[in-house]
Amino acid sequence: MTYCAALKMNNHLIFMSDTRTNAGVDNISKFRKMFTWSVPGERVITLMTAGNLATTQAVVSLLDERSKAPEERDPTILQAPTLFQVARLIADTLNEVVNERAEEGQDAEAAFRATLIMGGQIEGMEPRLFLIYPEGNFIEASSETPFFQIGETKYGRPIILRAFDPDMTVEQALRLLCVSFDSTLRANLSVGMPLDVHVYEADSLDEGAQFRIDEANPAFSVISKGWGDALKLALEGLPEFTVPSR
Amino acid sequence: MTYCAALKMNNHLIFMSDTRTNAGVDNISKFRKMFTWSVPGERVITLMTAGNLATTQAVVSLLDERSKAPEERDPTILQAPTLFQVARLIADTLNEVVNERAEEGQDAEAAFRATLIMGGQIEGMEPRLFLIYPEGNFIEASSETPFFQIGETKYGRPIILRAFDPDMTVEQALRLLCVSFDSTLRANLSVGMPLDVHVYEADSLDEGAQFRIDEANPAFSVISKGWGDALKLALEGLPEFTVPSR
Repeated sequence: MTYCAALKMNNHLIFMSDTRTNAGVDNISKFRKMFTWSVPGERVITLMTAGNLATTQAVVSLLDERSKAPEERDPTILQAPTLFQVARLIADTLNEVVNERAEEGQDAEAAFRATLIMGGQIEGMEPRLFLIYPEGNFIEASSETPFFQIGETKYGRPIILRAFDPDMTVEQALRLLCVSFDSTLRANLSVGMPLDVHVYEADSLDEGAQFRIDEANPAFSVISKGWGDALKLALEGLPEFTVPSR
Repeated sequence: MTYCAALKMNNHLIFMSDTRTNAGVDNISKFRKMFTWSVPGERVITLMTAGNLATTQAVVSLLDERSKAPEERDPTILQAPTLFQVARLIADTLNEVVNERAEEGQDAEAAFRATLIMGGQIEGMEPRLFLIYPEGNFIEASSETPFFQIGETKYGRPIILRAFDPDMTVEQALRLLCVSFDSTLRANLSVGMPLDVHVYEADSLDEGAQFRIDEANPAFSVISKGWGDALKLALEGLPEFTVPSR
């Protein structure tokens, strides 16, 4: 499985993804699930992937190859005029990969499914964030739903629902994502460290900060440990629930 | 969907279940998912159900009918000598119901699946707690895993993982369950109020406290509201995560 989350803030897009892939619990590997393409000063596009690894790797490879040899396929994600068109291109590529496998006699189409999050900015336009479904359709984040999650989303969802605010600072948002990922890492073996992070600053049109959080990261460890203690304290601060008298 | 959780404490078993059932989002109903049978002074058995409603209702009806007309089926859950045998009887009844439907040409066996939690005590023996799988096999709670969840388990799992301790008081455990259910209720429309609660006191061999928590319950409301605020405070109390310098 996988856990990826993206937040659309007032002045930033923040992406975080884990790196564990598994085919059964005895076949665990580490793969990057976050990919960024950019034309400095013109566009930045970040993609996160969940689902069948062969599918997502093929999608990323095709997008990458085509962006380097644009004569083969026009426009590429580095040329499409809007992020909506970029989302459409990525969705079409996803469909192409899944259908190719399905045509080759592997009728278990469900097994090849993947879900993607794509966000970024093109010069002269607003930053945008999309969730691309396995079926190839997609939705865009709005002020009502300013974040997306894919993969093993449930463990880490309540805290984002409760605490996310697009007005947060980057440091606060990263702290929130660390807590959301920590809850997921603890509950589900199929989500694992290290975590990839990308912080895109609106209107910078530059890839910006990209870094990895591993088991030894002191800031993550402090948040993880602190969160456990803080949760217990928070719980203890609530009134106890008394059994109603009969 | 459904959310049920049961905690095995040092001196109590605590059960909590929601009451929402749905076949699609436009077909929502309210059904009890917690059932208790007892022979005062001799045994108490509580069952919680998740999965196909027709299956779980049939299982409960069969268990109930047979306990009232034991000549039909011997032993019944009110006669079986141990809770292990009770778990086996319930699992067999579950298999019987599912296979009956499957034989009648409804080959979508998966659609009729159900998962159950059963706990209680028989005179002279320890209180025990079991999780019965759709396949009809089952596991028992131990000191390493002193709680079970069924249905929509993920949203409410991190807080139980972090905070549950079998040494808690009943009031603390109920508070913890309220928080776990609150996280689930907020995240998933298919889990809904009111909540049924059963607190069984070890060695009482009496049904004990059974009550319902509805939307208007002031104690639950205070915990729900307080938890949102406490979570935000807990988060704010953690160090922020600074983007590493490149």
